[in-house]
Amino acid sequence: MAATILDGKQLAEQIRRQTAQRVQRLAATARAPMLAAVLAGDDGGAVLYAESQAKKCAELGIAYRLERLPGDASQADLLSLIDRLNRDDAVDGVILQQPLPKTCDAAAAQSAVRPDKDVEGASPMSLGLLAYGRPALLPCTALAAWELIKASGIKVEGANAVVIGRSQIVGRPIGLILMQNHATVTTCHTRTRDLPGVARTGEILVVAAGRPRLVTADYIRPGAVVIDVGTNRVTETGADGKAAKKTVGDVDFEAARQIAGSITPVPGGVGPVTVALLLRNVVEAAERHIG
Amino acid sequence: MAATILDGKQLAEQIRRQTAQRVQRLAATARAPMLAAVLAGDDGGAVLYAESQAKKCAELGIAYRLERLPGDASQADLLSLIDRLNRDDAVDGVILQQPLPKTCDAAAAQSAVRPDKDVEGASPMSLGLLAYGRPALLPCTALAAWELIKASGIKVEGANAVVIGRSQIVGRPIGLILMQNHATVTTCHTRTRDLPGVARTGEILVVAAGRPRLVTADYIRPGAVVIDVGTNRVTETGADGKAAKKTVGDVDFEAARQIAGSITPVPGGVGPVTVALLLRNVVEAAERHIG
Repeated sequence: MAATILDGKQLAEQIRRQTAQRVQRLAATARAPMLAAVLAGDDGGAVLYAESQAKKCAELGIAYRLERLPGDASQADLLSLIDRLNRDDAVDGVILQQPLPKTCDAAAAQSAVRPDKDVEGASPMSLGLLAYGRPALLPCTALAAWELIKASGIKVEGANAVVIGRSQIVGRPIGLILMQNHATVTTCHTRTRDLPGVARTGEILVVAAGRPRLVTADYIRPGAVVIDVGTNRVTETGADGKAAKKTVGDVDFEAARQIAGSITPVPGGVGPVTVALLLRNVVEAAERHIG
Repeated sequence: MAATILDGKQLAEQIRRQTAQRVQRLAATARAPMLAAVLAGDDGGAVLYAESQAKKCAELGIAYRLERLPGDASQADLLSLIDRLNRDDAVDGVILQQPLPKTCDAAAAQSAVRPDKDVEGASPMSLGLLAYGRPALLPCTALAAWELIKASGIKVEGANAVVIGRSQIVGRPIGLILMQNHATVTTCHTRTRDLPGVARTGEILVVAAGRPRLVTADYIRPGAVVIDVGTNRVTETGADGKAAKKTVGDVDFEAARQIAGSITPVPGGVGPVTVALLLRNVVEAAERHIG
C-alpha cells in the first residue's frame, strides 16, 4: 500500500487561517503584531522576497516594516539598527534579509536579535532555550518538520526517531524537539557508518542532508513517517529526452512512498509549512509582548 | 577479559597539573585568574563547600573571592550582585553556590551570568553556543564524561554513542559534544522502548540516569567504553549482615566490567574529573579575557 502523502500546502493553509484568527484577536484587544525586516543594499532577489513577504503579512493582518540599509553598511550600522528594533516596543519580530553586506558578520548580527524577537529562531540563545525546555521561538524549518510529524498522527512518545543531518537550523533543533516530546532520537550525518541500517530503525525519519535523493528504499522502515526537508535543484533528462531543471528532495520519493506509512512530497511538503510558521512565530512573539 | 578501569582520580590530577601551568603562565604575563563565588545565607554545607573550593583554587594559584548575601536576599539583590561581577574585569568566572534563597529564581539567576563567565556552563546560552559549535564554557560533568571517553583511546568519529539521560547539564550537552566530534548519537530516557537493546548498540555508552545500578550486563556491548555519571547513596547489607551506606553509580560495575572494554568506577570516575574541570573552565575564561 502506498504511503499517505502529508500535504504541506494544505497544512500551511490551516496554519495561516489559525494565525489570522490570532492576529484578529490581538488587533481587537491591543494592536496588530509587527514584523520588521532588515534589508541591506538592493539585491534584486532580496527586494522581491521582501515584497512577497510584505504581501503575505498584509494578507494575515500583520504589520510589516522594511528597514533599509545601504549595501556598504558597516557591522556597527547593522548592530545599531538591530539594537533600535530590539528596544522598539512596537516591533514583535525581526528578520535579517539575506544577503547581508559582505563586510558584516551575519552570525553575530543574528545573535544580536533579542531572543523574544528572533522569529527565525536562528541564534544560539534560541537553540539553548529549546534545549532547556524553556519558551523559545523555534527555527521555522525544524518546526515545520515537527508540525508535519504531528499531522501524520504517529504517537511520538517512545517512538524511535532518526534525524539525518545535524545543522544548526534543522537537524539539531528537530532532534531536540523530538527528544522533548519523548522520542528516542538518533542523529546521523556524513560520518555515520551504515547510514541505511541506522535510518531503518526510525519509525520517524527526518532527512535534512542537502543531498538530492540520498535516501532510497533501503533507508526506510516499513510504515515509517518520512519527512523530507531537502530542496535541491537538479537538471534531469525527462521522458521526452530533454534536459530540464526540477526541484527534488533528499528522499527518492517514488521509491520511498512504496514503503513508508506517510511521507512529505518535495515541493509541497516542508517548504510551504516553513513559510507559514515564520508568520505564526511573529504572532507568538506578539502574544508574549502584549499578553 | 575484564575491562580497563578509567581512573578519574589520576586524570583529575593530570588536569590539575596542566591547569596549574596555565595559571602560572597567566600570572607571569598578566594576572592570576579569579573565581567569584556567590553564597547566600549561612547554610553549613554551603559554607564548608566554599571553604574547600577556596583551598582548591589556592593550590592552583587561582584567586578566589567569596561574595556573601544575606539568607533572605531578594532576586533584585542577587541580580544586582551578578551584574556587578559580570562587569568587573578582575573576575573571570562566577559560580552561584547552592542553595540560593528560596525567594530567588535560581534558573533566572544562572542565566544572568555572562556566558564568558559561566564557568559551570549551566545556562541556555552556554548550551546554545555548544549546539552552534561556537566557543563556550561547557557544563563540567558533561565535559568530564568527554575527557574520560578521550582517555579511553576510542576513535569517536563514526562510532555509535548512546546516552542514557537527557538532563540539561549532562545528557544533552554530552550528546552535543559527541555529535560535534562526529559520533552517531542516540539519546535515551525513561520513555525509551527496549532500553537494554538500544544501549547495546553503543560502542560508547554514557549513563546519566540517576538510578542506582540501572545498567546491567545486558545493556553493554562487548568492548564498549562505559561512562557512569551516576552518584547514588544507597543503604545495603554487607557480607557481615550489617546495613551500611555506600555510593554506587548508575551502572552495575561488577557485572559491566566483565563485558565492557573500559569503564569508569563510582566513586573515583567522573566525580573527581568534574571538580578539576571547574577550575580549568576558570582558566579557559581567564585566557579569553586576558588573551
